[in-house]
Amino acid sequence: MTFASIADFRAALADLRAPDQDAIAAARARQAELTKPAGSLGRLEDIAVFFAGWHGNARPKIERARTAIFAGNHGFTVHAVSAFPPSVTVQMVANFQAGGAAINALSGAAGLELQVTALDLDTPTADFTIAPALSEAECLAALNAGAAAVTDDLDLLTVGEMGIGNSTAAAALCLRSYGGAAADWIGPGTGIDAEGIARKTAVVERALAFHADAPADAFETLRRVGGREIVAIAGAVLRARQLGVPVVLDGFISSSAIAPLAVDNVDITAHCIAGHVSAEPGHARLLARLGLEPLLALGMRLGEGSGAAVAVNVIRSALAAHDQMATFAEAQVSGQL
Amino acid sequence: MTFASIADFRAALADLRAPDQDAIAAARARQAELTKPAGSLGRLEDIAVFFAGWHGNARPKIERARTAIFAGNHGFTVHAVSAFPPSVTVQMVANFQAGGAAINALSGAAGLELQVTALDLDTPTADFTIAPALSEAECLAALNAGAAAVTDDLDLLTVGEMGIGNSTAAAALCLRSYGGAAADWIGPGTGIDAEGIARKTAVVERALAFHADAPADAFETLRRVGGREIVAIAGAVLRARQLGVPVVLDGFISSSAIAPLAVDNVDITAHCIAGHVSAEPGHARLLARLGLEPLLALGMRLGEGSGAAVAVNVIRSALAAHDQMATFAEAQVSGQL
Repeated sequence: MTFASIADFRAALADLRAPDQDAIAAARARQAELTKPAGSLGRLEDIAVFFAGWHGNARPKIERARTAIFAGNHGFTVHAVSAFPPSVTVQMVANFQAGGAAINALSGAAGLELQVTALDLDTPTADFTIAPALSEAECLAALNAGAAAVTDDLDLLTVGEMGIGNSTAAAALCLRSYGGAAADWIGPGTGIDAEGIARKTAVVERALAFHADAPADAFETLRRVGGREIVAIAGAVLRARQLGVPVVLDGFISSSAIAPLAVDNVDITAHCIAGHVSAEPGHARLLARLGLEPLLALGMRLGEGSGAAVAVNVIRSALAAHDQMATFAEAQVSGQL
Repeated sequence: MTFASIADFRAALADLRAPDQDAIAAARARQAELTKPAGSLGRLEDIAVFFAGWHGNARPKIERARTAIFAGNHGFTVHAVSAFPPSVTVQMVANFQAGGAAINALSGAAGLELQVTALDLDTPTADFTIAPALSEAECLAALNAGAAAVTDDLDLLTVGEMGIGNSTAAAALCLRSYGGAAADWIGPGTGIDAEGIARKTAVVERALAFHADAPADAFETLRRVGGREIVAIAGAVLRARQLGVPVVLDGFISSSAIAPLAVDNVDITAHCIAGHVSAEPGHARLLARLGLEPLLALGMRLGEGSGAAVAVNVIRSALAAHDQMATFAEAQVSGQL
């Protein structure tokens, strides 16, 4: 187990690896010499420098990349907060395994290996309006399940999730992490109507009230109002940081897994790229709180790591330009006047 | 020659092909059956339906795709409007041919064949502050050079340009097409300072004043204040429409080639996707006038078709999801409650 105890997890979150500053400086110097006006590749230049830092290589490459998808079920779905029945979680996991979901097509198009981890789908979390969603042992197990999906041979990890109802848990995590009104963090998810949104809001408000006196640290917030798939993402992101593997976050739910970590240590986002900003209204607000600028804004709101997978194509383009372009000297092109 | 005369060009622009409505309807119906909440792939769904219409195929594919880059030189560069000397145009064409430019790496990453057309680089256009940039014959030749880069075996075309100084020509085209103040359309281009921007603004204002009494139709605007590489893009986009080939536009300059066409026939943009919005401030304004929503916003401002090439990766992802995903029935996944 990566995190043998809650104390282990807390120690890991408190002591985060830093990127390689020499590689960052060398990548920046290379960008300045490539045959283009300075800065003219915009975000593509920043991405190349970011990967240089985490790979410890001035000319980083993505050879092995994985999308890790975690699935879980939620006790609060008895309150009718989703447009789909909870049985869809296991059906969609089967769809992932059969190759028929969006993430199968999108990870294929992005050159990502797909790894699906189904977490006790026949044992939903407890209804978090009346109990912690997970026991301490269950939460620690989910963190370790996430960590187990990350290996040190990866050049990039994307994270995604499947769990009917989990935009409600994401809203609760954001509200417990950053405050505001419940409505700030609640949206239509897979497509509920105004009455459904009112139910979601009430469920989140009841959950927050129930857990109001509990400790506010990352572990307690994750176990009280998270869910197994979300906690696993938190574990995967923290493990990736230990191994120096850059992470591409997906939508509102995968980003919400980071919120409690960022409250305890804001630097947790330093190895993360926000792959996109989703149509779920809380996501833009959450990314702003996390200090992450999304790479894409395509109106996606599917989850499954789908937006992160699309973003990987942009990252591959960024590294291709950084690695393959000629310098002004090599190409005998005149520089700026 | 695709356009044997100015009248031929005008007739082509007046009579634009329509997409296949049956294929559009079939693609929309397929999207509604795929294993995801309705609309949850956002722009990816729109892109799949768009390609269905132009390919006349409910499950469109991109097998052969080309980036057509046109290069030209400009007489107004005597007024010091660029951060780079005009000799860089031919040097960068050599860089394209040697494989060392950004577009080489980015078209490779996007699976695009790269075709570079250098247009009379040793004969710059006339200085458009004192004469039309091109004669009628030169303008027609440039339109045909653009058209010649498009073949009916293409599933997608991206367009790009290289021409030191050409953001000044682009600004003149936008100002003559849509009005406003010269400053609305002028920015730093490859990286000039405030004094350079003042010079650009004065050059564009003098050009517009010189040509104020000339006809305002697309051909006259292109030849008076355009340049060979920009006119060629206009010809390529129009030819692609004749052949039903969808086009991905690049940045401010390639988009400016469409402005005069859109003034004559606003429907010219119907087969075009704005690959990105660049950091050049006039580009967002121009796309709004053209009615195009950019796919990416990465702060790029290089030209060469670079932003369009990155966008092609997103388009490939969109078509992969549309083609490869299972339906609810195929995957035995429950639909919305």
